[in-house]
Amino acid sequence: MLTDGVDFDLAACDPRRVVRKALAVNLSDLAAMAARPEAALVSLALPRSAGIELATALYEGLLPLAEEFDVAIAGGDTNTWNGPLVISVTAVGSVTRSGVWRRSGARPGDRILVTGEFGGSILGRHFDFVPRVQEALYWSARHEVHAAIDVSDGLSLDLHRLCQASGVGAIVDLEKIPIASAAHELAVQRADGVSPLDHALADGEDFELILAAAPQVAQVMLREPPAGVKLTCIGEFSEAPGLWRRAEEGNEPLAPRGYVH
Amino acid sequence: MLTDGVDFDLAACDPRRVVRKALAVNLSDLAAMAARPEAALVSLALPRSAGIELATALYEGLLPLAEEFDVAIAGGDTNTWNGPLVISVTAVGSVTRSGVWRRSGARPGDRILVTGEFGGSILGRHFDFVPRVQEALYWSARHEVHAAIDVSDGLSLDLHRLCQASGVGAIVDLEKIPIASAAHELAVQRADGVSPLDHALADGEDFELILAAAPQVAQVMLREPPAGVKLTCIGEFSEAPGLWRRAEEGNEPLAPRGYVH
Repeated sequence: MLTDGVDFDLAACDPRRVVRKALAVNLSDLAAMAARPEAALVSLALPRSAGIELATALYEGLLPLAEEFDVAIAGGDTNTWNGPLVISVTAVGSVTRSGVWRRSGARPGDRILVTGEFGGSILGRHFDFVPRVQEALYWSARHEVHAAIDVSDGLSLDLHRLCQASGVGAIVDLEKIPIASAAHELAVQRADGVSPLDHALADGEDFELILAAAPQVAQVMLREPPAGVKLTCIGEFSEAPGLWRRAEEGNEPLAPRGYVH
Repeated sequence: MLTDGVDFDLAACDPRRVVRKALAVNLSDLAAMAARPEAALVSLALPRSAGIELATALYEGLLPLAEEFDVAIAGGDTNTWNGPLVISVTAVGSVTRSGVWRRSGARPGDRILVTGEFGGSILGRHFDFVPRVQEALYWSARHEVHAAIDVSDGLSLDLHRLCQASGVGAIVDLEKIPIASAAHELAVQRADGVSPLDHALADGEDFELILAAAPQVAQVMLREPPAGVKLTCIGEFSEAPGLWRRAEEGNEPLAPRGYVH
């Protein structure tokens, strides 16, 4: 559910991008379970003053993404009221024959794999990201992935959540984290001492996947990624709980940071 | 999606009843397809000023109904904002081995069967109705029902919709329509010339089922209804399109009336 004034500012952004995001974050959740998207239900509370133009723009923003991922807009509810715009999207997917990914299956020694790049999504990528649905289905059909999560609140925070659900820890090679160019831009723009790496670890809304796979499986996955996606190994899961940054002089604690609801 | 100020007035009614209704109307939609409810996803936009008390009350209102129908609250999204309360519920069900009911299968000669009673739901039943899930599953497993719809906008209007979807008409015996005592109360309270029968035909939010079944099937269904529900034959579907009231001197047109969105 995205609400005007909290999740977006309708006065300052295109409603097409907002509603696309409302569906895309749902598809990212399905991707994190390696589920095949089937249908979406879209409920709207439209400000009475905005009229038919807003409703039209919302469907213009929704339909291209729904078509791209073959998702039927199967229902929902359209209301008008005197309040601000509210968009609520529920997506439904199906489990493939390969089963579902959960957060809870990572094992000590598994590699930490991540898709794409991290940080600075606020500069635009949080609207325009492509949910990793196709990649998840590709890997799910070919490789044994032990656990997965999508990064909505922050790379380090969501990695921490996956660790907690799996009862393991994680040792991260910070220098291997793929940092988005937007993270560098944001660090320059803000000039507040927050480094591009900090943005990559904590910004969130990257909607990339974190995957856990045994070393040999990870090796094959890294060698043959599906077209158009970068896959990077950023460390390994450990028996010792908690998040750690790998350092020559001994691992040091790494604080999980990100958006806390 | 139910919004404060449009679908309910939070200042005047218990949030427990509101959220129960938000789930119950979804279950009624599933009942109208003879689907088995499985899970519900509940998204809330909570006014910041209301605090944890409102959130608690909402879950107190939701859980008993979810438990009664064995529906898992499988997810959703909880937000706070400066706007009024918004409740969006999506329910997911599964098709049984008996298949789904649709609006489109009624045939000329089929009997028009209705559950329960109609009219005056605004006096309380629109909050406290029991969705006809168990009855639908009971009949679906035992009898060939050709078409079904639940009455959300008005008995005559929803019957008209079923007729249009099926390409048939309907001849209604007005004197057989089961009129709720609330319809009589409302007619007395308002004293505006609207009869109890008018309320039954047009009020809506009864969340009862209209079913189409062949005469012999209808006969058996009427003889052996599941415990606790009244089933009434109020007429038959016809080759001639449109709604008609049966009259000795020849059928007369009956205007579909109800809530138009």
